[in-house]
Amino acid sequence: MTKAEFSEASKRYLGVVERELSAIKAGTEGSIHPALREAMFYSLESGGKRLRPCLTLAVCEMLGGDIASALPIACGLEMIHTYSLIHDDLPCMDDDDMRRGRPSNHKVFGEAMAVLAGDGLLSFAFETMLGAAVRSGSPNLLAAAYEAALRAGAGGMVTGQAADIEYEGADVQTEEMLRYVHRHKTADMLEAAVVCGALAAGADGWIVRSLRRYSESMGMLFQITDDILDAVGDEALMGKTLGKDAAKGKLTYVGLLGLDGAREAAEAAADAAKEAVKDIDTNGYLTAVIDNMLTRDR
Amino acid sequence: MTKAEFSEASKRYLGVVERELSAIKAGTEGSIHPALREAMFYSLESGGKRLRPCLTLAVCEMLGGDIASALPIACGLEMIHTYSLIHDDLPCMDDDDMRRGRPSNHKVFGEAMAVLAGDGLLSFAFETMLGAAVRSGSPNLLAAAYEAALRAGAGGMVTGQAADIEYEGADVQTEEMLRYVHRHKTADMLEAAVVCGALAAGADGWIVRSLRRYSESMGMLFQITDDILDAVGDEALMGKTLGKDAAKGKLTYVGLLGLDGAREAAEAAADAAKEAVKDIDTNGYLTAVIDNMLTRDR
Repeated sequence: MTKAEFSEASKRYLGVVERELSAIKAGTEGSIHPALREAMFYSLESGGKRLRPCLTLAVCEMLGGDIASALPIACGLEMIHTYSLIHDDLPCMDDDDMRRGRPSNHKVFGEAMAVLAGDGLLSFAFETMLGAAVRSGSPNLLAAAYEAALRAGAGGMVTGQAADIEYEGADVQTEEMLRYVHRHKTADMLEAAVVCGALAAGADGWIVRSLRRYSESMGMLFQITDDILDAVGDEALMGKTLGKDAAKGKLTYVGLLGLDGAREAAEAAADAAKEAVKDIDTNGYLTAVIDNMLTRDR
Repeated sequence: MTKAEFSEASKRYLGVVERELSAIKAGTEGSIHPALREAMFYSLESGGKRLRPCLTLAVCEMLGGDIASALPIACGLEMIHTYSLIHDDLPCMDDDDMRRGRPSNHKVFGEAMAVLAGDGLLSFAFETMLGAAVRSGSPNLLAAAYEAALRAGAGGMVTGQAADIEYEGADVQTEEMLRYVHRHKTADMLEAAVVCGALAAGADGWIVRSLRRYSESMGMLFQITDDILDAVGDEALMGKTLGKDAAKGKLTYVGLLGLDGAREAAEAAADAAKEAVKDIDTNGYLTAVIDNMLTRDR
């Protein structure tokens, strides 16, 4: 798949996701309290790359599934991702004023409403996914919603956030701690995105297992490049404050391996990800995602 | 059903719920980060009456269902209820230092971990419910989990919380606002508890509809008696700070109707609840719940 083909396919998935999120929003008028609805959709609508839902649709389509069936799952994952950013930005957590180039949720709506906007999005994600599972009557979407709950949840992404907070105050920060945090905080939700696409398509177990390996390496690649961008990236392009982790004395891959070492580790993770899906990636999209992530500037 | 029979049946349900929550906790060792796990189960284990999960089991059993099948749903609802209390107690929300007779979650674990403990419990509720739905292969548990998402979520309990915050600063507080807040903040989760029991038992639509009317009146009864206890209750028995709503100038049923008027409204709501289930309540448990709530002192 050429860069142009990858870009075109990604735009198509992005368009499908954006249209569905708009339709979902329209369907909540009158049922969600206006102030809560405004706060929830302020963050959900503030763009971003929609990496997770696009991955879900891409994997589903590549495996011969119908992307329409995976769409509510894809949107649910984006809601979960968005709720985690809102809560992560709170003053008692990372205390970030900017997100995706706009004031963060609590700067606009206040802390109480930001907590509720996050709670609302997390619940609404399951409402969206389970509504689709009920209507379809297919076990595939139930399996996907369960996968989302496992990866987003107490033993997944939230465990990564908790470990991140716990280790921040630790006297010694080890590579093992860094890997544990990002395995859960970052890779688990990427795994959910990729695996949910396969589950929605009713894929075989060996395919799901290969995709889990792929997304684990992708998670590491994503985090290493995030650390590199945090050190040498462009704040305007990234749409958030940079250099905060280093300033806080937080362990990063750049701090651990140096800039060159981090770049080498990123390439190794990229190779491992591509290797994991070499028998599945029939149209080359999953490989292109990795190449794109390796050279990303935002 | 006599008071003694009601008390015995409630104790039996409570025992089943407590044992299952313990088993669930044991199953999370090693999968949830220890600090997060401690914070989550600190609140989940700190007792309370377990009103919601006991209602789920009672309704399921009354309708001929197997309470073992409803149990993961019942526990999921208690997790959702507990997460809402943790987030509600946060300094940016109601700022409560005590809950169920113990220091509230953020007083023990800090604000950041309390936010995550709530997020973890909400996600874990769906993990628990959906795991059971996947294993059972029955559409009944999926329908119950979807009901939980609807009632707990953005158009349910969270909408009630958001409205509560919005109206607190309003110049004029109307009875309509008060009803809207409590319809969602209180009644929606009681409705989920009752209806999920029926869905787990595979009950007919007319039964579910009657139970919705029952739980709506129960929600009003619960809130009116809560307001009465907030005005004249015993802080030691209640295990939380009382009189806060009145001190904040928040509208309550006692403020709106006076103490006698509130007591009359409570009796009217109790009558309406009992009337709604007169053809269903074969063992008298649902009636006894209402009578017990009307005369509660905690």
